[in-house]
Amino acid sequence: MSILVVGSVAYDDITSPSGSVKNILGGAATYFALAASYFTEVRVVAVVGEDFGADQEDVFRQHGIDICGIERAKGKTFRWGGSYADNLNEAKTDYTDLNVFETFHPQIPREYEDTKFLFLANIQPTLQANVRRTMNGVRLTGCDTMNYWIKGTPKELAETLKVVDVLLINDAEAKMLAHESNLPRAAHKVLGMGPQALVIKHGEYGATIFFREGAFGIGRHPFRAPALPIEEVKDPTGAGDSFAGGFMGYLASQNELNREVLKRALFYGGVMGSFAVERFGTERLQSLTRDEIEARFQTFRELTHLE
Amino acid sequence: MSILVVGSVAYDDITSPSGSVKNILGGAATYFALAASYFTEVRVVAVVGEDFGADQEDVFRQHGIDICGIERAKGKTFRWGGSYADNLNEAKTDYTDLNVFETFHPQIPREYEDTKFLFLANIQPTLQANVRRTMNGVRLTGCDTMNYWIKGTPKELAETLKVVDVLLINDAEAKMLAHESNLPRAAHKVLGMGPQALVIKHGEYGATIFFREGAFGIGRHPFRAPALPIEEVKDPTGAGDSFAGGFMGYLASQNELNREVLKRALFYGGVMGSFAVERFGTERLQSLTRDEIEARFQTFRELTHLE
Repeated sequence: MSILVVGSVAYDDITSPSGSVKNILGGAATYFALAASYFTEVRVVAVVGEDFGADQEDVFRQHGIDICGIERAKGKTFRWGGSYADNLNEAKTDYTDLNVFETFHPQIPREYEDTKFLFLANIQPTLQANVRRTMNGVRLTGCDTMNYWIKGTPKELAETLKVVDVLLINDAEAKMLAHESNLPRAAHKVLGMGPQALVIKHGEYGATIFFREGAFGIGRHPFRAPALPIEEVKDPTGAGDSFAGGFMGYLASQNELNREVLKRALFYGGVMGSFAVERFGTERLQSLTRDEIEARFQTFRELTHLE
Repeated sequence: MSILVVGSVAYDDITSPSGSVKNILGGAATYFALAASYFTEVRVVAVVGEDFGADQEDVFRQHGIDICGIERAKGKTFRWGGSYADNLNEAKTDYTDLNVFETFHPQIPREYEDTKFLFLANIQPTLQANVRRTMNGVRLTGCDTMNYWIKGTPKELAETLKVVDVLLINDAEAKMLAHESNLPRAAHKVLGMGPQALVIKHGEYGATIFFREGAFGIGRHPFRAPALPIEEVKDPTGAGDSFAGGFMGYLASQNELNREVLKRALFYGGVMGSFAVERFGTERLQSLTRDEIEARFQTFRELTHLE
């Protein structure tokens, strides 16, 4: 089934120990859409400026991604510049020019209203909740957020969490959201705020999915998927969005949503994140084959499974 | 087959967010020996002072641990005081009184000379190498070390690494030892220094074992075992030594040492580490049953394995 992502499309300038790139296609919705496109049909709601080129549109179209929901507004496309130091763990933001993204009010095209899977990438929480409310037929909603909204708009975020099924955030965000330094305790507090499942991303250590009692099956046991030990991380930008794209894209490709399917989705999330960081920007995500994805899924399995 | 551990036996004062304890039995060799005792016969070489009580000796004896290698010296037993803040990630050392441990020169009793499995807990590297050299019949040697020796005695440590089979250290230690911030690259550098396999412990995220090409089987693929998401960590002291005890103890209980056995050993390491932190000091390690250990092994499997 098709999946709709609502979020940013951007131009990025990125510097890492492996080099520098300028004016490359970026944004959470872009990484998500490309990663998910290997699993299912993808639709995008975003905004770009008058400077957004046909070449960039072609990147989406070549992956069968429906971009009729990408609004073209007066002004410039969102631009972000970031640098990574040696440990690659955190981006230093060099600049953020929101441009047309500053007044982004997601409009869902009529032809998207039948979408069954929805991913709310990291935007202002009330906008996320509004999108969710206009989509009546949605079967599963995934959601991302960040420390900026957790700190700045906690009430709005709390309302959004009531209407999402799966929240995908990292360790620091989960702890901040729950006001709790122990990770599993933080997870259970966050599940109490609304979501049926919570994916906590641990960067190079993988990710854990925590379930609400009874959600998607029996029990409250978490499940952990690895990340690949990668010798050369060129550019960590978009790893989390690519993870979400693999996770949600795989879910949307399945008939049934049970625990086993969500566990496999967590593996596919790790797989797509691991590809994303191998090259700058979306380069690696643009050139994948389904065979390469399955081979890496197998590598992830061998990395963690006993005989 | 039996396993010999050479390391510290101590009295600890520990404060964590869960409370405080004073004068409890501690030391790397103690945690290691108790954890390993559920898998195989354990022998200990250590030194204690005149203050070391019969009650403490009984803790070892009740687990069938051979302590004829624990030397009783004039003076006081090694004492350590440590505190953990809210995140429990790192101990703040309140004091270290080396006492009789300061002049510890491990003597291997004649009746231990046939030992096939050896674990060199964290002591001065030259002492570790000397012990290894006196034990001619050893089949597999495991070794721990710490930042203090990596920084302070790098040449001595390099000599020790040439005569050990498996090194068990944490992320920060591996990166410091290899002068390399990328973990898999650091791992391969460390394997180049001597060991056949390297276990890197990631704390709450589990552990990864890296193999030298051809060591214990075919290929160079690493393997990752999880840690249990624990809601109440009472006291992290000894988690790493308990991990090593589970890992090495399981290896010593097996006839063949191949990759699959080392992978299972990594799981048992995580299992014993997860028990250790549930109560203060060695309390939980003293009261386990093999059934509880197998049940938790199963939990670790369910935490990571797809159907």
